[in-house]
Amino acid sequence: MSLGVAIVGCGLIGHKRSKALAGARLTACADVVLARAESLARTAPGAVASDDWRAVVSRPGVDIVVVATTNQSLAEIARGAVEAGKHVLVEKPAARSVRELDPVIDAAARARRLVRVGFNHRYHPAVQKAHEVFASGALGELMFVRGRYGHGARIGYDKEWRADPALSGGGELIDQGVHLIDLSRWFLGDFTTVSGFAHTYYWQMPVDDNAFLTLRTAREQTAFLHVSCTEWKNLFSLEIYGRDGKLHIEGLGGSYGVEKLAYYRMLPEMGPPETTTWEYPRDDQSWALEFAEFIDDIRLDRQPSAGLVEARAALAVVEEVHRQSGYDVGRSRTGRTS
Amino acid sequence: MSLGVAIVGCGLIGHKRSKALAGARLTACADVVLARAESLARTAPGAVASDDWRAVVSRPGVDIVVVATTNQSLAEIARGAVEAGKHVLVEKPAARSVRELDPVIDAAARARRLVRVGFNHRYHPAVQKAHEVFASGALGELMFVRGRYGHGARIGYDKEWRADPALSGGGELIDQGVHLIDLSRWFLGDFTTVSGFAHTYYWQMPVDDNAFLTLRTAREQTAFLHVSCTEWKNLFSLEIYGRDGKLHIEGLGGSYGVEKLAYYRMLPEMGPPETTTWEYPRDDQSWALEFAEFIDDIRLDRQPSAGLVEARAALAVVEEVHRQSGYDVGRSRTGRTS
Amino acid sequence: MSLGVAIVGCGLIGHKRSKALAGARLTACADVVLARAESLARTAPGAVASDDWRAVVSRPGVDIVVVATTNQSLAEIARGAVEAGKHVLVEKPAARSVRELDPVIDAAARARRLVRVGFNHRYHPAVQKAHEVFASGALGELMFVRGRYGHGARIGYDKEWRADPALSGGGELIDQGVHLIDLSRWFLGDFTTVSGFAHTYYWQMPVDDNAFLTLRTAREQTAFLHVSCTEWKNLFSLEIYGRDGKLHIEGLGGSYGVEKLAYYRMLPEMGPPETTTWEYPRDDQSWALEFAEFIDDIRLDRQPSAGLVEARAALAVVEEVHRQSGYDVGRSRTGRTS
Amino acid sequence: MSLGVAIVGCGLIGHKRSKALAGARLTACADVVLARAESLARTAPGAVASDDWRAVVSRPGVDIVVVATTNQSLAEIARGAVEAGKHVLVEKPAARSVRELDPVIDAAARARRLVRVGFNHRYHPAVQKAHEVFASGALGELMFVRGRYGHGARIGYDKEWRADPALSGGGELIDQGVHLIDLSRWFLGDFTTVSGFAHTYYWQMPVDDNAFLTLRTAREQTAFLHVSCTEWKNLFSLEIYGRDGKLHIEGLGGSYGVEKLAYYRMLPEMGPPETTTWEYPRDDQSWALEFAEFIDDIRLDRQPSAGLVEARAALAVVEEVHRQSGYDVGRSRTGRTS
Repeated sequence: MSLGVAIVGCGLIGHKRSKALAGARLTACADVVLARAESLARTAPGAVASDDWRAVVSRPGVDIVVVATTNQSLAEIARGAVEAGKHVLVEKPAARSVRELDPVIDAAARARRLVRVGFNHRYHPAVQKAHEVFASGALGELMFVRGRYGHGARIGYDKEWRADPALSGGGELIDQGVHLIDLSRWFLGDFTTVSGFAHTYYWQMPVDDNAFLTLRTAREQTAFLHVSCTEWKNLFSLEIYGRDGKLHIEGLGGSYGVEKLAYYRMLPEMGPPETTTWEYPRDDQSWALEFAEFIDDIRLDRQPSAGLVEARAALAVVEEVHRQSGYDVGRSRTGRTS
Repeated sequence: MSLGVAIVGCGLIGHKRSKALAGARLTACADVVLARAESLARTAPGAVASDDWRAVVSRPGVDIVVVATTNQSLAEIARGAVEAGKHVLVEKPAARSVRELDPVIDAAARARRLVRVGFNHRYHPAVQKAHEVFASGALGELMFVRGRYGHGARIGYDKEWRADPALSGGGELIDQGVHLIDLSRWFLGDFTTVSGFAHTYYWQMPVDDNAFLTLRTAREQTAFLHVSCTEWKNLFSLEIYGRDGKLHIEGLGGSYGVEKLAYYRMLPEMGPPETTTWEYPRDDQSWALEFAEFIDDIRLDRQPSAGLVEARAALAVVEEVHRQSGYDVGRSRTGRTS
Repeated sequence: MSLGVAIVGCGLIGHKRSKALAGARLTACADVVLARAESLARTAPGAVASDDWRAVVSRPGVDIVVVATTNQSLAEIARGAVEAGKHVLVEKPAARSVRELDPVIDAAARARRLVRVGFNHRYHPAVQKAHEVFASGALGELMFVRGRYGHGARIGYDKEWRADPALSGGGELIDQGVHLIDLSRWFLGDFTTVSGFAHTYYWQMPVDDNAFLTLRTAREQTAFLHVSCTEWKNLFSLEIYGRDGKLHIEGLGGSYGVEKLAYYRMLPEMGPPETTTWEYPRDDQSWALEFAEFIDDIRLDRQPSAGLVEARAALAVVEEVHRQSGYDVGRSRTGRTS
Repeated sequence: MSLGVAIVGCGLIGHKRSKALAGARLTACADVVLARAESLARTAPGAVASDDWRAVVSRPGVDIVVVATTNQSLAEIARGAVEAGKHVLVEKPAARSVRELDPVIDAAARARRLVRVGFNHRYHPAVQKAHEVFASGALGELMFVRGRYGHGARIGYDKEWRADPALSGGGELIDQGVHLIDLSRWFLGDFTTVSGFAHTYYWQMPVDDNAFLTLRTAREQTAFLHVSCTEWKNLFSLEIYGRDGKLHIEGLGGSYGVEKLAYYRMLPEMGPPETTTWEYPRDDQSWALEFAEFIDDIRLDRQPSAGLVEARAALAVVEEVHRQSGYDVGRSRTGRTS
């Protein structure tokens, strides 16, 4: 029989998750606003709604809890869910800080439950194809990764929850930045040197709207990353350089442009590379693919990737860049939650 | 009557300069290989050739000396030329180090001669147009600049003079990197914080083949720059972000692709920006425009821009990044030349 | 007080029209399926619904009738509306044939009512800008126009109403083709020579799915047009050539790609042209602009352009190409409706 | 031992051919201007020069004659060469008319010599790859081909030999047009219906500068082709549509842009196709590949493709379009040469 899913946090992301359950069934919904939980529950026969996430994550018939709340609740609910014996898919960044995440890691280990973190960009088709080419060895040894990711402005952005560090744990860096960090680490491995500068250039808000990162592995492979919510023209670009070729992922569909992967293969005689490009004009299936893989994780009792290890690595980078840039979001937040 | 020009260094760049004298006349040529000087001299009626640059820069009838040698001689010859009472166009980077450049600055000041430095990228049409849009105020206050510049490989690159720090003063950073640094500074102003990482990823050579830079002005405006000679697919991209819009320069013609400038203008309602793109498919005129401006500098007794101040600023960044990255090209070189 | 609008035909197009009334008010809706009329009427306070278009077009308080039915009813209803004293916006192609359209022209003239035909492509921003550049004289005398317009397939396309000549009057040519014909004529003027080939390549249906047209004005200016519903990758491209330059419109937004206009200006020295491109990434406003202009037409008692003259010209081309290609849609249809 | 080659016509094309002999040796050169023959002969050890093509094509040690003269001499020299017992590569269009070509066909048959016609576009890498995809059956049954080919103006174009029908046999249609016709026929097969309009829009010259063609096979597959020397922005585009997908070749390198092939594969669910693009940024090798294949033709005694049959088919289209458009280049020329 198919797995039962509870969704905690029934906003935009909760709704997207409910449509990408890869054969699992929505059986329960929770939201601090009961009407939102009810609205989502109505889309699935027999699903119940509640404004008490603790009640929902304890229900029998729930095998997986999806945590899709704003950032300040992600860790607490994920922890509660694993302690209730459920597997968990928690949206990125999974917590506002490493300090907040570590108890989730401990709890999951004790409860022997699996936690997947919603770094869904890994499941975009151009990213999947890029990782396949990389994994085939066709790029040779990797040298560096270059990433640019950002969106333009919308009026009132500085009044949204993301602009409140108590809710978000930070600005653009913890929002879109963790995707770039996670993707870079997926290709390059762990970063041992972190240098970065986050800054608030445009918006009147206490969190960063831009961050510039130079991350290095122990082998001096570099991830050179910029994330921005003053990008003006929406942009996603990730360039991956090996000794034998280059991959360039661009676009995420919609206002980010058609998703593409270009593969530049160096020839023995050097000069202009052999170039092949694949385009992915179809609708984003990344959420469903990610969830299907989680169902496989559970079936095979396999540690999800991306999971808590990956989230912790990304958050550690975020915190170090915040620290280097003079933001105290981590400290004040930690203070608040203690 | 038109100005007389001597060219010292009659290789590829010397030849390009000789074809872009903007109405001035080539009257003398010098090269350590006499045959090369003679070959270039033959292209101009009455021009003389020599293998002794000191003789050439002292000649009457020479008003301007173009110094187009490999890097290790640029400063010495530029200094000799101003001391001989000539105006000088010296190719970038003008010297291998600040320490090597400062005597040129002193000599030019004492001799009251003008020295222009060949940052010819400023004279590319998309760059000129971008600076006009910026100078009009249309971008509003600048926030940051993003630059990517690099070329692919050619067999034997590690055996060329650029790979020898005694001749070049460094690798990709001092070669293509100074252009990105200079252009960024042209838009943003002086950099007061320099953070960077240069590294040799690919080639067996003692100089860097990649450099990642994060430069900041006193107002925290950032230049986020990467230069690479393992770029595989030739690339020039400079993105300039203001509060009210973005400029994107791409391509330099030829294997770098058609030169373009895109201007993204934010609308009051935000969302997708108004977008205009200009293309410049014609042959590169930057060298002739740069030289014509130097002739104007001389006529008006105006400090050239870019001149020695700009070269010194770029070299100071290069040296600091070399230092942070563990390269001793500066020190050993300085040792050698003392 | 604002003008009152009745919409006859409350499907997809009727709904789009209702959201783009440019300040006029929706006061009545008619559809052969009453529920559809009621559904649309509910979106506007005080609007009434009916399944009898004759009742609706006669109502006081209706100044403008929008006719957005399938093709076989367009002419009849438009005629009824002008005879009831209303101004009319009728969707393209306005009728299935010239023979069916002529009585509308007569009726409008007798009733002294204005009829606009919904060639909304004229109001796309790249098309508007292109026509401005043309009207400024910047292109010089026009030589020819090249157009490619088409869409890919969807399953069951051959079972839709467009595949039934009794309802549609033809296939791809009368559907998307009339837009290309109308736009070409807007730039070049009347076509005096028509040569074309329509054919059914792919779908099992009695109407064309592709048409290739070569149209010429009295001055031998050529419109070379292809429309296709087997285009596989959605495409809109219109290239306009004058003696002094070229305009290229591409994209219509959405799956047709970002709408763009490129302007290639010939230089006196010839060679690569000066190139400027404008992009229009924002949502399509063409429907509202078209309707606003119709309101101006009415206010100024000005013949709409595009109006019945333009529709008749386009239909005459369609019929001649059908005739040359052996389709009898016109004749059998006329037979059926007599 | 390698084959000996004589080149008749030592202009730009003759020089290009001499550098792409695929292992054969240049042994003799002829040109009406002796100095040009001598200049080319000097590039090959032991090659002789003459201003008498008859002498050259009769030489022992010559196995292949390349005929690279202006159009009015192509057929006569090709015929002379085969009658002298040589194999021949004659540049397109091979003759100014079918009437002029037929004696070459007869002579080659009698002499049992092979004649290849220089439709080198077949050997461009994107075209080769496109034909492979087509030949694999991946496109399904072909429906139509769309081609656009043209270049911008250069000052004095109307004074060049191409503008003189006695020398060229026609204008843009016989110059670039035959490539499009040949490529379309390579994919679609013989054309049984020809409809076209050639016209002189821009230049003061008695030959066409634009031609619009609609060609059909017996199965109603259509080639919809436009060639232009008032294209302003150099363009090569060939789109090939099958029931199951589309190929799009764009660019020829240099000022025509990077050569690319896009393959749009329809999916069973329809909607946006799967898209793969290959780029060919390297220098054009088509001439060498074509010649290597000719050497294989000779070795295997295989009829070259493209050969005289293909040239005759292309010329028949050209003549019919000239006839429909009121040009008498064919008739007057034939008169002159009889």
